[in-house]
Amino acid sequence: MKHLISPLDLTVSELKEILDLAGEIIQNPKKYATVCQGKKLATLFYEPSTRTRLSFEAAMLNLGGSILGFSSADSSSASKGESVADTIRVISSYADICAMRHPKEGAPLVASSYSSIPVINAGDGGHNHPTQTLTDLLTIQTLKGKLNNLTIGFCGDLKFGRTVHSLINALVRYENMNFMLISPEELKIPAYLREEVLDANKIPYQEVKLLEQVMPSLDLLYMTRVQRERFFNEEDYIRLKDSFILDAKKMEFAKEDMLVLHPLPRVNEIATEVDSDPRAVYFKQAEYGVYVRMALIMKLLEVA
Amino acid sequence: MKHLISPLDLTVSELKEILDLAGEIIQNPKKYATVCQGKKLATLFYEPSTRTRLSFEAAMLNLGGSILGFSSADSSSASKGESVADTIRVISSYADICAMRHPKEGAPLVASSYSSIPVINAGDGGHNHPTQTLTDLLTIQTLKGKLNNLTIGFCGDLKFGRTVHSLINALVRYENMNFMLISPEELKIPAYLREEVLDANKIPYQEVKLLEQVMPSLDLLYMTRVQRERFFNEEDYIRLKDSFILDAKKMEFAKEDMLVLHPLPRVNEIATEVDSDPRAVYFKQAEYGVYVRMALIMKLLEVA
Amino acid sequence: MKHLISPLDLTVSELKEILDLAGEIIQNPKKYATVCQGKKLATLFYEPSTRTRLSFEAAMLNLGGSILGFSSADSSSASKGESVADTIRVISSYADICAMRHPKEGAPLVASSYSSIPVINAGDGGHNHPTQTLTDLLTIQTLKGKLNNLTIGFCGDLKFGRTVHSLINALVRYENMNFMLISPEELKIPAYLREEVLDANKIPYQEVKLLEQVMPSLDLLYMTRVQRERFFNEEDYIRLKDSFILDAKKMEFAKEDMLVLHPLPRVNEIATEVDSDPRAVYFKQAEYGVYVRMALIMKLLEVA
Repeated sequence: MKHLISPLDLTVSELKEILDLAGEIIQNPKKYATVCQGKKLATLFYEPSTRTRLSFEAAMLNLGGSILGFSSADSSSASKGESVADTIRVISSYADICAMRHPKEGAPLVASSYSSIPVINAGDGGHNHPTQTLTDLLTIQTLKGKLNNLTIGFCGDLKFGRTVHSLINALVRYENMNFMLISPEELKIPAYLREEVLDANKIPYQEVKLLEQVMPSLDLLYMTRVQRERFFNEEDYIRLKDSFILDAKKMEFAKEDMLVLHPLPRVNEIATEVDSDPRAVYFKQAEYGVYVRMALIMKLLEVA
Repeated sequence: MKHLISPLDLTVSELKEILDLAGEIIQNPKKYATVCQGKKLATLFYEPSTRTRLSFEAAMLNLGGSILGFSSADSSSASKGESVADTIRVISSYADICAMRHPKEGAPLVASSYSSIPVINAGDGGHNHPTQTLTDLLTIQTLKGKLNNLTIGFCGDLKFGRTVHSLINALVRYENMNFMLISPEELKIPAYLREEVLDANKIPYQEVKLLEQVMPSLDLLYMTRVQRERFFNEEDYIRLKDSFILDAKKMEFAKEDMLVLHPLPRVNEIATEVDSDPRAVYFKQAEYGVYVRMALIMKLLEVA
Repeated sequence: MKHLISPLDLTVSELKEILDLAGEIIQNPKKYATVCQGKKLATLFYEPSTRTRLSFEAAMLNLGGSILGFSSADSSSASKGESVADTIRVISSYADICAMRHPKEGAPLVASSYSSIPVINAGDGGHNHPTQTLTDLLTIQTLKGKLNNLTIGFCGDLKFGRTVHSLINALVRYENMNFMLISPEELKIPAYLREEVLDANKIPYQEVKLLEQVMPSLDLLYMTRVQRERFFNEEDYIRLKDSFILDAKKMEFAKEDMLVLHPLPRVNEIATEVDSDPRAVYFKQAEYGVYVRMALIMKLLEVA
C-alpha cells in the first residue's frame, strides 16, 4: 500500500484497516492531532475541485501536518509544458505525500510510477476517485453498522457517474448486496459493469425507471446528479429530469432507517426540503470524507 | 455573538470587548501565539481580495491556528452550481470558523443561517464589510485614545463607498461626533443615511465640496477612492477628481495631530508625498486590521 | 544582508555562509524543524511559478514557519491598481519575510525599498532570479565538493536565459573557472556579459555550436531550454533545436563524473532516457533548492 490510484488497489482487508482507523479517529480525534507533525501534503489540482481539495487539506491539518500546492492548472508548471512525471519528481522533494486531481485519465497513475512519495488519486477525468469511494464506504459502515446484507439504490446518471461505478465495484466484494439501479434508459450503467462486475459476481440487481417503484425496499439510496450536458437533446432532459429528483413526498415511501447519500455538489436532484429529514446524511457524509482521508494519509505515511 | 454579518450585529459593549482585547494583543502578541492551536479558519473568497484575505490568514496564523480555503470563485464548487447553503454545510465539517467574501449582497447572511461554525462577512458586494469597520474603530481608539468628541471628515465617494456608510453607522453610537462630508455633488451620501442615521440621531454634520474648507477643523480625515466608473461621463470625472486628492499642500492646513485614514487600496487619491507625514496612518491601519481580526476570531471561537 | 534582490547582493563570504548552512541542513534537517516557529512567509507571485513558489513554501514549512500569499496577479490587489510599494507596506504587517515574483524587472527592488521585512526576489521578468543561482551553487558545491577549478558548459539559449547570466556572474568570482558556451549563433551570450564579465575578469571561455565538440572536456553541463518564441522564424527553430538536445548518445562522450544540471521545467531539451543516468542531477538540484532557501530564510530572519 504505497499509492492509492484506483479504489480496487486496496484489498478488502486493507480497506477494513482504513475504515477501522477512521472509526477510531471519529471516536477520539484529539488523539491524532499531532501524528503528522512535520509532514507536508501537496495538493496538486490541475482542475479545480474545492470540496475534494479542502477535504484533503482539512484532513492533513487535523493530523498536525502542513499543506502546500495549487488549485488549478493555470498556476502550475503544466502551462510551461512540463510533464506530470517531471512535476512529481520535483514535488517529491517538497512534500511527504500528495493528492493529485487531473482532467486526464491515468495521470495520477503515471505520476505514481515516477514518485518517491505516496500519490493519492483525487479524481482523474471520468475515471477514478477512490477517496470518494472510501468516504461512501465509511458512511455506510458507520451509519448502518455493516457493509453487507444491504439493498442499495443508485439513482440518476448511472452511465457517466464514476462515483457510482467505483462504489459498485467496491461493494460487490461484500456479502449479500442487492442493487436497484434507477435511471432513464439513456443513462443506464455501462455494459461492462453489468456483465463483468454484477453478472460475473452473481450480484442480484434490478434496473428500473421510477424511483417510487423501489423506494420501500431500500436500505440506502445513493443519489447522483443528472447533468444536462449528458443528454442528446433538451427535450429529453426536461422530460426526464424530474423523475430522478428526490423530494419529501418520495421520502414518505422509504423505510424509517433508509439513508440518503450523495457525493455532492448537489444541484436540484434532491429538493432542499429533504435536508431536514434525519435520513438525509449527505452532509454527514462530507464530514466522514475528512476522517477517512485522515486514516488514509496515516496509512500511506506509515504513522499508523 | 455567533456570527459577524453586519457591523451593527455588535452592541457597543461587545465592540468594546473586541477593541479592548485587540488592544491587549497589541501590547503582548506573544501571549496569544497558540490560543487557536488545532483550530482552522476557512477563507471562502468568491471574489478576490488579497488584502482582506491575507489579513484574516495572518490573524489566524498569529493565533497558532491553520488556514485553508479558496481565493476566487473559479476554483470553488460555485462553478458547479452549488448553493452557498450547501457549501457552508460542508465547510462546517472542514473548519472551525470561516470568513466569506461574496459579490452578492446577503450571501454571508444566508450562509450563517445554515452554518454550524461562526461565519464572518468579509465583504458582500457593496453592502457590508464589518471587519473594515472594526479596523477603523481600533485605529481611532488606539491612536486617538478615544471614540468620542471627534470631528471626522469623510472625503471622496460617499455615495457608493460602503466603508464610509458602515463607519458612520458605527460612529453615531458614540458621544459628540461631528461629521464633515466632503464630496462632489454626484457622490454625496445617500438620503437614507442622512435622514435615518444622521438626522435621526441628531448628529451634527456638514456637506462640503472642498477639502480645503474643512481641513483645519478635523481630528481625523477618512479618505476614499473616487472611482472612474462611478461617473456618468469622463469629463465630470476629470474635472472633479483632483479636488478630492490629498497632497502635502492640503496637509499644511490640518491640525498637528489630525490623522489620515484610508481603507486601501489607494490609487491616486492620496499623493505619495503624504506617506512620510507622521499623520498618515493608513499603513498602520492595515496593521491594526490584523489585530482586530485576531480579537474577533478569539471571541467567536470563545477562546477569549 | 537584509534583502536578496540580485545574486550579486551577496559577497562571496556571505554566499559561503549560506551554502555552509544549507550543507548543515542537508546533514541534519530535523535540527532546524522549529527554528522559524511563529514566523510567516508571504509568497507574492504576480506571475505563476509553481515550482519556485512551492520550493519557498516547503522551505518555510520545513523550518516550522507558516505560509500565506497569492499565486497570480488576478487574485491580488494589483488588479485594483495598487502599487507594489503600497502592497509591500501592508504585507509588512502580515508576514515576517516575503518572496516576490513579478513580471516587471525591478519590482522586487522597489518593494524592498518600502518594506520593513526582508524581500527575496523570486524572479523579476527576464532579469534576476537569485535563489535559482543559490540552488545551482549549492548543487555544484555539494556534488562536486568545490566551487573552483571546473570546466562548465552552458548549453541552449544563452542570450535570453537569465539563469545562465546569473550563474556566470556568480561563478566568475571563484578560482580557475573555464566556460564552454554552446548555442546557436542567434542565441549567444549578450555582448555585455562577454566583455564586462568574462573578458574583464580574464575568464577563459569558448563559444561553440555543437554540444558534441566539448562534451569530453566538461565537469558540468548546464542545460537550458531553447524556446520556440525566441526565434525569428519557425524554420530556424526546427533546424536548430535538435543540436541542443541532450540524449544518451551524447552522454557517452562525457566524463564519468560529469554532472548535468537544468533549472527546470524541462520540455524536450533533455531526452527522458537521460533521467536514469546517475550523472543527471536536475531533480536532485530541485531538492537542493529547498535546502538553500531554508538557509536563506534563516539568514534573513536572523535565526541562524
